[in-house]
Amino acid sequence: MAYERIRLESLKDKVMTAEQAALLINNGMVVGSSGFTKAGDSKVVLPAFAARAKSENLKITLMTGASLGHDTDGKLAEAGALSKRMPFQVDRALRSKINTGEVLFIDQHLSESAELLHNKNLPPVDIAVIEVAYIDRDGSIVPTTSVGNSVTFAALAKQVILEINTAVSEEVYGIHDIYQAEDYPYRNVIPIVAPWNKIGRKTIPLDPSKVVGIVFTDMLDSPADIAPADPKTTAIAKHILEFFENEVLLGHLTDRLLPIQAGIGKVANAVLMGFKDSNFYDLTMFSEVLQDSTFDLIDAGKLSFASASSVTVSKDCYQRVFGNLQKYRDKFVLRPQNISNTPGLIRRLGVIAINTAIEFDIYGNVNSTHISGSKIMNGIGGSGDFARNAYLSIFVTQAASKENAISHVLPMVSHVDHTEHDVDILVTDIGLADLRGLAPRERAQKIIDNCVHPDYREQLQSYFDRASERGGHTPHLLEEAFSWHLRLMDAGSMKK
Amino acid sequence: MAYERIRLESLKDKVMTAEQAALLINNGMVVGSSGFTKAGDSKVVLPAFAARAKSENLKITLMTGASLGHDTDGKLAEAGALSKRMPFQVDRALRSKINTGEVLFIDQHLSESAELLHNKNLPPVDIAVIEVAYIDRDGSIVPTTSVGNSVTFAALAKQVILEINTAVSEEVYGIHDIYQAEDYPYRNVIPIVAPWNKIGRKTIPLDPSKVVGIVFTDMLDSPADIAPADPKTTAIAKHILEFFENEVLLGHLTDRLLPIQAGIGKVANAVLMGFKDSNFYDLTMFSEVLQDSTFDLIDAGKLSFASASSVTVSKDCYQRVFGNLQKYRDKFVLRPQNISNTPGLIRRLGVIAINTAIEFDIYGNVNSTHISGSKIMNGIGGSGDFARNAYLSIFVTQAASKENAISHVLPMVSHVDHTEHDVDILVTDIGLADLRGLAPRERAQKIIDNCVHPDYREQLQSYFDRASERGGHTPHLLEEAFSWHLRLMDAGSMKK
Repeated sequence: MAYERIRLESLKDKVMTAEQAALLINNGMVVGSSGFTKAGDSKVVLPAFAARAKSENLKITLMTGASLGHDTDGKLAEAGALSKRMPFQVDRALRSKINTGEVLFIDQHLSESAELLHNKNLPPVDIAVIEVAYIDRDGSIVPTTSVGNSVTFAALAKQVILEINTAVSEEVYGIHDIYQAEDYPYRNVIPIVAPWNKIGRKTIPLDPSKVVGIVFTDMLDSPADIAPADPKTTAIAKHILEFFENEVLLGHLTDRLLPIQAGIGKVANAVLMGFKDSNFYDLTMFSEVLQDSTFDLIDAGKLSFASASSVTVSKDCYQRVFGNLQKYRDKFVLRPQNISNTPGLIRRLGVIAINTAIEFDIYGNVNSTHISGSKIMNGIGGSGDFARNAYLSIFVTQAASKENAISHVLPMVSHVDHTEHDVDILVTDIGLADLRGLAPRERAQKIIDNCVHPDYREQLQSYFDRASERGGHTPHLLEEAFSWHLRLMDAGSMKK
Repeated sequence: MAYERIRLESLKDKVMTAEQAALLINNGMVVGSSGFTKAGDSKVVLPAFAARAKSENLKITLMTGASLGHDTDGKLAEAGALSKRMPFQVDRALRSKINTGEVLFIDQHLSESAELLHNKNLPPVDIAVIEVAYIDRDGSIVPTTSVGNSVTFAALAKQVILEINTAVSEEVYGIHDIYQAEDYPYRNVIPIVAPWNKIGRKTIPLDPSKVVGIVFTDMLDSPADIAPADPKTTAIAKHILEFFENEVLLGHLTDRLLPIQAGIGKVANAVLMGFKDSNFYDLTMFSEVLQDSTFDLIDAGKLSFASASSVTVSKDCYQRVFGNLQKYRDKFVLRPQNISNTPGLIRRLGVIAINTAIEFDIYGNVNSTHISGSKIMNGIGGSGDFARNAYLSIFVTQAASKENAISHVLPMVSHVDHTEHDVDILVTDIGLADLRGLAPRERAQKIIDNCVHPDYREQLQSYFDRASERGGHTPHLLEEAFSWHLRLMDAGSMKK
């Protein structure tokens, strides 16, 4: 029965085990793999390669869509199998190897990896590993729960290994919109003017002569870990919903809003769930990852369409969606990440982007990636693709954490991922600061008044006041700008 | 004869003096004015308002395309006439008032001001002052040497004052491509797929009933100050040209390259002039400002078309171009700045963006705006619009200045305008660092090896080595990251 998923007869003799496929990946190769926030990743070939790499001391450069599931990044890292990794990761073991310098990581805007490959600004892909639901008669492939960079890997890789996942229904045919822009200098318009526009094919083109191995798997994606809402995330969501309601009252937005992008995690889920009992209706998403909350909103009749590059949901939600595709198939679409995240579409559609910050500063600069300037947490992901080009760029974080030893609102962020020029709205559990139309000194006072934890308000006001006295468009005391981070490192708290 | 430039009869009784027009601008108003890098700015009404504001103690919010000429920003600042200013300026007196906090400045991506106005994310424009060549029979207006944000100001301002500049030939009709995207949520595709595409009207639509005053002027734009090339700019240009030649050899680019954007100043001019004696041909520009070098390259038969929002050239070049429009009118076009600088077009066309940095750091972060973190120089201008979405994002600066007391290559920049995620190539007079495909630690070593001034190489290597030992994806010593800036402030040199 599994063999029926190879609808091109000539490929049937390519079937092999994961261990055999892993032998096709050699030392020093550039490997491109499917997988976007755990969804649609390689379930067996990359793990088998990790085992082989450990014993044979092999290293590869690994490019994916985004993060992988099933601890695959961790297994590869622990096996010492990665020399370079891009464009995103969330794994504890890998992160640790990146921070020691053992694995070189490129923290890339998710829309750009495919562009860079097509433009020959990255080394060519030697071999691709792509999870598919099935191989069609013409050799083209049907992806599973994500599209990611698979279209680019299939087009550019010299060799391709396919993982046919029989745990994924063949009915996923049609939930993907496979489109690639032309190469320079002959690129045309990407003709999307609304989230629900489908402009491409249903399958990923693939030259069958490049297929060097086919492996069967029967294993679901790693489920999303949905942390329950807590008082802080609930407060953040409440501030954002009140802000939207007010924008409608002011006539800036209608109660359909504009297409929403929401980063991963419990704040995004809390905001989206907040729409459930609101007056907003006919909402849409133009995002990169669809989480449980998207499908809850669809079920509640609040959300009419969602566009993204992957579906990363809990086990229950997975069954609900992929077990009832007939119900959902006209409600969402999965696109290549260089389409879901492309700057021109985000500006054309007027996306409302909601992303999570690690910390932000009084002038509106946002750090999404680094702990105390040096150590990476996960990566920028698609937040820059969206924030930079959005109609509204919203960043959220808790005001303070670790029993308030850490303030997430600071004199100066220790790493800048989103500049003061790109940020419209900052939100913590304490409150929301609307920075539109404000100069830096105005922003600072509003952020201090609205967002900082009370334990740090006086300390932050003091910094701003003393810096302002010394002068400048963006007043800083460079000798003191990182003193909060340094105090945390030295004394375990940012408090004076 | 001047009255013939008012081709709509009913507007002829609106003619008045600049002083009378200045009386229409009241305290607290939001004023939108034409003018983009000195080109096509208000020649008399804003200066007359500056005089009035000084005696009557009036303050306005002033939005423009970009910087103004004829010291108008300086006159307004010295008169205390500005409470808020956006999105760009280059004036010494205004800068000083911004840095004391007396004038609030919003340093905005040049593509975004018009968007923010249309989206009601900025306060509405009370009155617009727009320089025009003439008023057409239907009341629509023909701009002069720039388009800037005038289309938006004409559409949204409650009242409009027109300055008809008789020093500008009526033959400029047709050099502008006036197009505005639809408002959300009904925005369509902007149908430009090559720099030479013209997609709009030749005149700016204007409701004649909004015209409250018409003033005649006869005064050229402030000429561009073209500093002659010096050994440093020549060296930078040479590195860039060699890089391009090598990209052609590698098959990454053809010798037509891709559309070029070049920031303002002598480095950009030096790079463009370098093409004159090269093998490159049929070059195009998709930029924001056209300088002398653009027209020199057209004359040399090297450049076939240039798209921008303004022409800012020397006096000689002005006569050459605007005295021979028949020769040049199919070689360039001026667009609204939210079209010339729009992210989607920059990515669609694959623009090669060359912009000037104040300083950059070992990880590739670029500061384009601030001196030692606090004091603004000019502003980000369009550099972010282009760099963030470009095919190649190149930043240039001198390695050291002030008898090498200042290094422009640093452990950490004191303000981030372009993040490590957005920068491909860094160039100083010392050399070029190609950062594509490099992780932060690799970038650091390449920048130290290729770009830093020899006087600072050891010092920078020492910082990087000691930071790397402590660890991290982007190793920093936060307690020392700004020590170079602090040493400069304390001791007059960044040298240890």
